[in-house]
Amino acid sequence: MENQEFVLEIPYGTRDFLPTEAATKRAIETGFAELFAQWGYDEIVTPTIEFLDTLTIGSGSALEPHMFKFFDKNNRTLALRHEMTTPIARVVASRLRDEVLPIKLSYISSVFRYEQAQTGRQCEFYQAGVELIGSASVAADAEVIALAIEGLRRAGLKDFQICLGQVAFINGIMHQVHLTDEQQEKIKTAMEKRNFVDLDNIIDHIDLPKNTRDILKKIPLLHGREEMLEKAYAMAMSEQSRRALDNLCEIYRLLKVYGAADYVSFDLGVIRDFNYYTGMVFEAYSPVLGFPLCGGGRYDSMLSDFGSFCPATGFALGIERILLALEREGLPTPSIKKDVYVAYAEGKAADAITKISEVRAQGKIAELALTAKTLAEAEKYQQSKDYGELVYIK
Amino acid sequence: MENQEFVLEIPYGTRDFLPTEAATKRAIETGFAELFAQWGYDEIVTPTIEFLDTLTIGSGSALEPHMFKFFDKNNRTLALRHEMTTPIARVVASRLRDEVLPIKLSYISSVFRYEQAQTGRQCEFYQAGVELIGSASVAADAEVIALAIEGLRRAGLKDFQICLGQVAFINGIMHQVHLTDEQQEKIKTAMEKRNFVDLDNIIDHIDLPKNTRDILKKIPLLHGREEMLEKAYAMAMSEQSRRALDNLCEIYRLLKVYGAADYVSFDLGVIRDFNYYTGMVFEAYSPVLGFPLCGGGRYDSMLSDFGSFCPATGFALGIERILLALEREGLPTPSIKKDVYVAYAEGKAADAITKISEVRAQGKIAELALTAKTLAEAEKYQQSKDYGELVYIK
Repeated sequence: MENQEFVLEIPYGTRDFLPTEAATKRAIETGFAELFAQWGYDEIVTPTIEFLDTLTIGSGSALEPHMFKFFDKNNRTLALRHEMTTPIARVVASRLRDEVLPIKLSYISSVFRYEQAQTGRQCEFYQAGVELIGSASVAADAEVIALAIEGLRRAGLKDFQICLGQVAFINGIMHQVHLTDEQQEKIKTAMEKRNFVDLDNIIDHIDLPKNTRDILKKIPLLHGREEMLEKAYAMAMSEQSRRALDNLCEIYRLLKVYGAADYVSFDLGVIRDFNYYTGMVFEAYSPVLGFPLCGGGRYDSMLSDFGSFCPATGFALGIERILLALEREGLPTPSIKKDVYVAYAEGKAADAITKISEVRAQGKIAELALTAKTLAEAEKYQQSKDYGELVYIK
Repeated sequence: MENQEFVLEIPYGTRDFLPTEAATKRAIETGFAELFAQWGYDEIVTPTIEFLDTLTIGSGSALEPHMFKFFDKNNRTLALRHEMTTPIARVVASRLRDEVLPIKLSYISSVFRYEQAQTGRQCEFYQAGVELIGSASVAADAEVIALAIEGLRRAGLKDFQICLGQVAFINGIMHQVHLTDEQQEKIKTAMEKRNFVDLDNIIDHIDLPKNTRDILKKIPLLHGREEMLEKAYAMAMSEQSRRALDNLCEIYRLLKVYGAADYVSFDLGVIRDFNYYTGMVFEAYSPVLGFPLCGGGRYDSMLSDFGSFCPATGFALGIERILLALEREGLPTPSIKKDVYVAYAEGKAADAITKISEVRAQGKIAELALTAKTLAEAEKYQQSKDYGELVYIK
């Protein structure tokens, strides 16, 4: 067949999960589903496809070039969802509009973005996350951060760090000095990409007092433990920026009660790549991975874009990145258990079926031979597939 | 906002699963994952997107108009997978080429087809299934049918019937009388759609002996219990058709040993909508649903189209249809359990966090209030969200 090699390929940035990988993925996802349920979050499932307009109203059009787009039969533009927060906002603003607040929802699903694919960055990837909708309280932010930490711990990770920031801190500074939207956007993009050369360059080309320039340039350096916040307070020129820092202090106080404070440090340069964040933002990092394992934050205005006025906060964990961090750290991942292989001599197929039904009724994982085999053949197959026990019916 | 109504819509033929529906879906899927693993089937996960050429090489181009298609950045045509058998054949023929046979794989995923959407037929829908690759034996066919039956039983269904057919029976008759490919295709399409007026019409316009015409017209009437096979043997003009019936008898004999025979009747008019079937085919029906709950069969030539020569058999269960049948039969579905709501008076947030951590450590499903509440407010919320117990910290 001429194009046989071709038909064996898969699209750029996608992957197959072979049995061992898929088993780990399922175990981790099932663990997240149980954990989120235990904290009172109800899972929802939304379509893989949404209208492009729905997705851009939620997270802005900056990500549109990264979306997989196509047309429906009526020539309306569809897109594969690129994140889950916007679809969930849509559901809350439509079918869950009359629910008692807060609404606590969770999801486990794949999302799609055209990206330069590399280890830890795929065009289709899996996320597990929660959205806590209808509460502006500090307790809501502390809860989602504590839940993200608990999720990473349950997945088996030991060595990770939450970097906690507050977009209102930098927004407060930029509003105070009257930067244009375009200038703000440029500064944030450079900061998000941690491109400090660009950042300095952009700031130097804006007509600002030297003092303000210095403050803007120093924001990405504002990271560390609780003590760092004092430095930040000294730089907070506006009420908005000071309130942002107060907010972080209050969240942190609750995280201490959760016993989660050791995982948390502050980083006021954390911006996140979605425009919709309005308050605290956070990312989780592993020392073995160059990408965040998790990202989230408060987004108090997105719901109003869908006609439903309420504050919200949440996060998404990256399933593949967690799998990769576990692997790189040499940590144990759930494996496939194979208990019993039942094989049989000529004419004994029926007896073997009766036997395996008994074995499975005991809750054991058991495979049945599909043709009569000699004992030697049966032993060879048992070993090749790692079955702990062989039952041979003769 | 001008287009607000529009952005709240979802694409034609898609749906949201709200919390109760999503909880049932997850419980049923987790049950299938456990069952398939217990029978020795390893789960795999493939990309949502495949090259169109890969999908059509597997299941033929007849379904191409029903696929969601678009272009990648290099102008190669991509499509959302419309079924899972072809992607799994691709994986087996590439990355699992050197595995010891048989290979037993399972999947739980959504697939996409443009269809006239109606209850039980969506453009994005969820399937759970298995593929047993590398065995031509009757035992392999019996195993997948027995597993499909066990799956439907574990999902909670009581009243369903497997209709078991054999495409080699009708193929044998059509080859014997030298029908053209086009004639065969037309007859099969009418038979698959159970459009008997069309079927008679098509057959009457082919130049055939009256006896043969009568036989072709009678095939869809060949359904019933074991006794029906005698009638079919009387009509089997070719060796191929007789062997097809022998094959059904042998499968049935093993299904009796599985204790599954009561669920099975024969229907030689079952054709299935994919071209790739070569042997036994089956569908599962519930009396409360006009669509099959499940479909499957043997496909011995698809793997060779991917350069890997081995026989295969399998099935797919329709998750939404199973949910619908359970609902219509008034059968219990797993529900969301809510144990404890922890609320607190002003200044007691920290104590409440300590308390809820204890409650969750006991394995209970517990939600924490996000602001201080009066006891009356707490009771109201507890009742609105159906928490069994309220813990109030004052």
